[in-house]
Amino acid sequence: MFDKYFDEYEIGEQRVFPGYTITESHVVGFAGIVGDHYPLHMNAEYARSSRFGQRIAHGFLVLSASSGMFPLVPGIVVAFYGMDDVRFLAPTFLGDTLDCEHEVIGLRAKDVRAGVVSVRQTLRNQRGEAVCVATLHILIARGPDGT
Amino acid sequence: MFDKYFDEYEIGEQRVFPGYTITESHVVGFAGIVGDHYPLHMNAEYARSSRFGQRIAHGFLVLSASSGMFPLVPGIVVAFYGMDDVRFLAPTFLGDTLDCEHEVIGLRAKDVRAGVVSVRQTLRNQRGEAVCVATLHILIARGPDGT
Amino acid sequence: MFDKYFDEYEIGEQRVFPGYTITESHVVGFAGIVGDHYPLHMNAEYARSSRFGQRIAHGFLVLSASSGMFPLVPGIVVAFYGMDDVRFLAPTFLGDTLDCEHEVIGLRAKDVRAGVVSVRQTLRNQRGEAVCVATLHILIARGPDGT
Amino acid sequence: MFDKYFDEYEIGEQRVFPGYTITESHVVGFAGIVGDHYPLHMNAEYARSSRFGQRIAHGFLVLSASSGMFPLVPGIVVAFYGMDDVRFLAPTFLGDTLDCEHEVIGLRAKDVRAGVVSVRQTLRNQRGEAVCVATLHILIARGPDGT
Amino acid sequence: MFDKYFDEYEIGEQRVFPGYTITESHVVGFAGIVGDHYPLHMNAEYARSSRFGQRIAHGFLVLSASSGMFPLVPGIVVAFYGMDDVRFLAPTFLGDTLDCEHEVIGLRAKDVRAGVVSVRQTLRNQRGEAVCVATLHILIARGPDGT
Amino acid sequence: MFDKYFDEYEIGEQRVFPGYTITESHVVGFAGIVGDHYPLHMNAEYARSSRFGQRIAHGFLVLSASSGMFPLVPGIVVAFYGMDDVRFLAPTFLGDTLDCEHEVIGLRAKDVRAGVVSVRQTLRNQRGEAVCVATLHILIARGPDGT
Repeated sequence: MFDKYFDEYEIGEQRVFPGYTITESHVVGFAGIVGDHYPLHMNAEYARSSRFGQRIAHGFLVLSASSGMFPLVPGIVVAFYGMDDVRFLAPTFLGDTLDCEHEVIGLRAKDVRAGVVSVRQTLRNQRGEAVCVATLHILIARGPDGT
Repeated sequence: MFDKYFDEYEIGEQRVFPGYTITESHVVGFAGIVGDHYPLHMNAEYARSSRFGQRIAHGFLVLSASSGMFPLVPGIVVAFYGMDDVRFLAPTFLGDTLDCEHEVIGLRAKDVRAGVVSVRQTLRNQRGEAVCVATLHILIARGPDGT
Repeated sequence: MFDKYFDEYEIGEQRVFPGYTITESHVVGFAGIVGDHYPLHMNAEYARSSRFGQRIAHGFLVLSASSGMFPLVPGIVVAFYGMDDVRFLAPTFLGDTLDCEHEVIGLRAKDVRAGVVSVRQTLRNQRGEAVCVATLHILIARGPDGT
Repeated sequence: MFDKYFDEYEIGEQRVFPGYTITESHVVGFAGIVGDHYPLHMNAEYARSSRFGQRIAHGFLVLSASSGMFPLVPGIVVAFYGMDDVRFLAPTFLGDTLDCEHEVIGLRAKDVRAGVVSVRQTLRNQRGEAVCVATLHILIARGPDGT
Repeated sequence: MFDKYFDEYEIGEQRVFPGYTITESHVVGFAGIVGDHYPLHMNAEYARSSRFGQRIAHGFLVLSASSGMFPLVPGIVVAFYGMDDVRFLAPTFLGDTLDCEHEVIGLRAKDVRAGVVSVRQTLRNQRGEAVCVATLHILIARGPDGT
Repeated sequence: MFDKYFDEYEIGEQRVFPGYTITESHVVGFAGIVGDHYPLHMNAEYARSSRFGQRIAHGFLVLSASSGMFPLVPGIVVAFYGMDDVRFLAPTFLGDTLDCEHEVIGLRAKDVRAGVVSVRQTLRNQRGEAVCVATLHILIARGPDGT
């Protein structure tokens, strides 16, 4: 998604984008950048005795990881408006591989230059489980002058 | 927030947490981890001719950065449920310093062990501008056996 | 380049891919990963008295950076065969922004499944100077069964 | 190599430099810095069904890693001229340990101050397999005034 | 420690702070930042034939890691004076989880605004072994005007 | 130092090793790895109103950075015993360049295989100020069988 102009989207349109494996390197790197060293992510002993039984990725990492999965084409994407209905449904363990599903659920022309595309996003792991859902609102150009 | 048991929160309760400066190192590191190298974040020439006039931080980085600002106490925080009403209101430029404001806007006991605390979060830069707002829903223990 | 099957390329075909700004974060990160902390890259005092007058990016970083500029489509790219005629023509200073130009200069079918596309690559900075040229040989699928 | 003046090299001279283990941290870090998140490097599921059966390191990472293995002495090395005959011969898996072999194959005095040393470099893994060969051309000082 | 004013400490006071798991990502990242790529940390083959039989974390990483375990409260901590009696007692392997023990062993008022708190610090792994001991001297405020 | 056998050192022997520039990338990277995000290092606004007037590098980063400046030769260095008299004398600002001075102040043969070399280390910035001193004790082999 986010690789074509606003008026080319249709409600109900679906696409799947292959993603990548969330590794310990991602978790340690993310913890360091955002400053969230919560022991469930960083302490193997603590995590072993938690309800998850092992270290899990940060929710914010899982959600953010989607932005490296779907296309973001310069000249098309104007701005990231926001999100709704973000829910973390299942843990992402170190070594899980996520894919990203998009379904267009809303189209709202803002002016002659751009419109908001609302996409229901589902991140799914290699076991087919949905781990994180979210509705993303992206401002998309209507043509070459839209940004 | 997220440093005391569920029953100790009150609707309307407010706190401010000092944050940190979002630097180019954060932006380059975040881009690398999540795989989002959009030129508005990574290409100074592209950014110069954009509506922002300079490189800006990723929305997901700004939002995620909050998790390094507020306290997350082991034994208190059970899980990150999700978010609603996430909106990006203003750009965060490289070198901007963000603080994090929390206001409790919802309390819903889930069972005898834990409840969901809903917090309206505002990230504000050193010029006092709100750059990102979001409502976070966190599952918080009601006591030592809550996690 | 590297976003279509082997038989779709033509000798002389040219494309330009926008790149990104090589920052101090890239240089420090690259030095750490590959273990090359040569003072021309890492020591501002040393660099100031060098022929360049300031720190410069590693040649290997500049060359490698190209791989984040041109498209690499799964199912199309089979393998990276090698390179010839790699030359570093001008320094890349911290803060320089590079673009990547490709011209197809060789096409050699290997078998029914794949062929080698040879591309003359020029990395050019925001002042229009070619900083690094190289001929890349990439094994490209001839169709869906090519990888 | 690259730890003595130009006139001290001899054609045929050979040296071996111990290297290091290419880990998942290197691969994830390198992908992030250069922006190459190709699934063969980053997606364990994709890699499992590839001809390699598992994730492999980027060719550019393997090649660049050599620069952290051989000595680079300030005052000796003037500039990195370029490379020829770079070939990737075998995959480098995450966890493979590489060493670096150098053989001087060319010596060309440029002027009274410096000359180009051409070295045939072979990166070999712990199983003794050559994974990457390249001919590096380095401009080396002929004495203390050479840089 | 380092979360209350100078006059609130008592000689003999003890606290334990849960830490985190030292992973390969920490070791590779630390090596890159400080530039210490010693093969005992970075080369699995070399480490296998060493007295430790496997890669170990840098002593400086282990020691520095403590600073992410104990609290450091703004307005309380004035400066890091120094350390004495730093000893590395046992190796830290990749995957070991460290905790941090503090005992106050010295209190020296410097002036009306601040005093030096001396703490004997023991880093202990998940097998209960002390891996690094050190005496830290921290300048701590005596009140809100102390910094 | 640490590039020759134990019996080759002499009390009073001095050497200077050129170092590198401590940048914001180092500080942000180090903070992330060790988990110390103290605002004096990470928050430009906080640092501006501190006694230093600007962000400073972590003491542990400055001290650890020395390990990337002096030589550490495999087969020579057996172990890092510990340190004494570590003192932080002046702040290191982002952009400062440090060098490393060593003076041998102690030699204690441990057995026929190795001995402890004690070195007084001074890290000095580009203004000539000593920023950190420490006495390092390194176990050094007495010959090829010493490790």
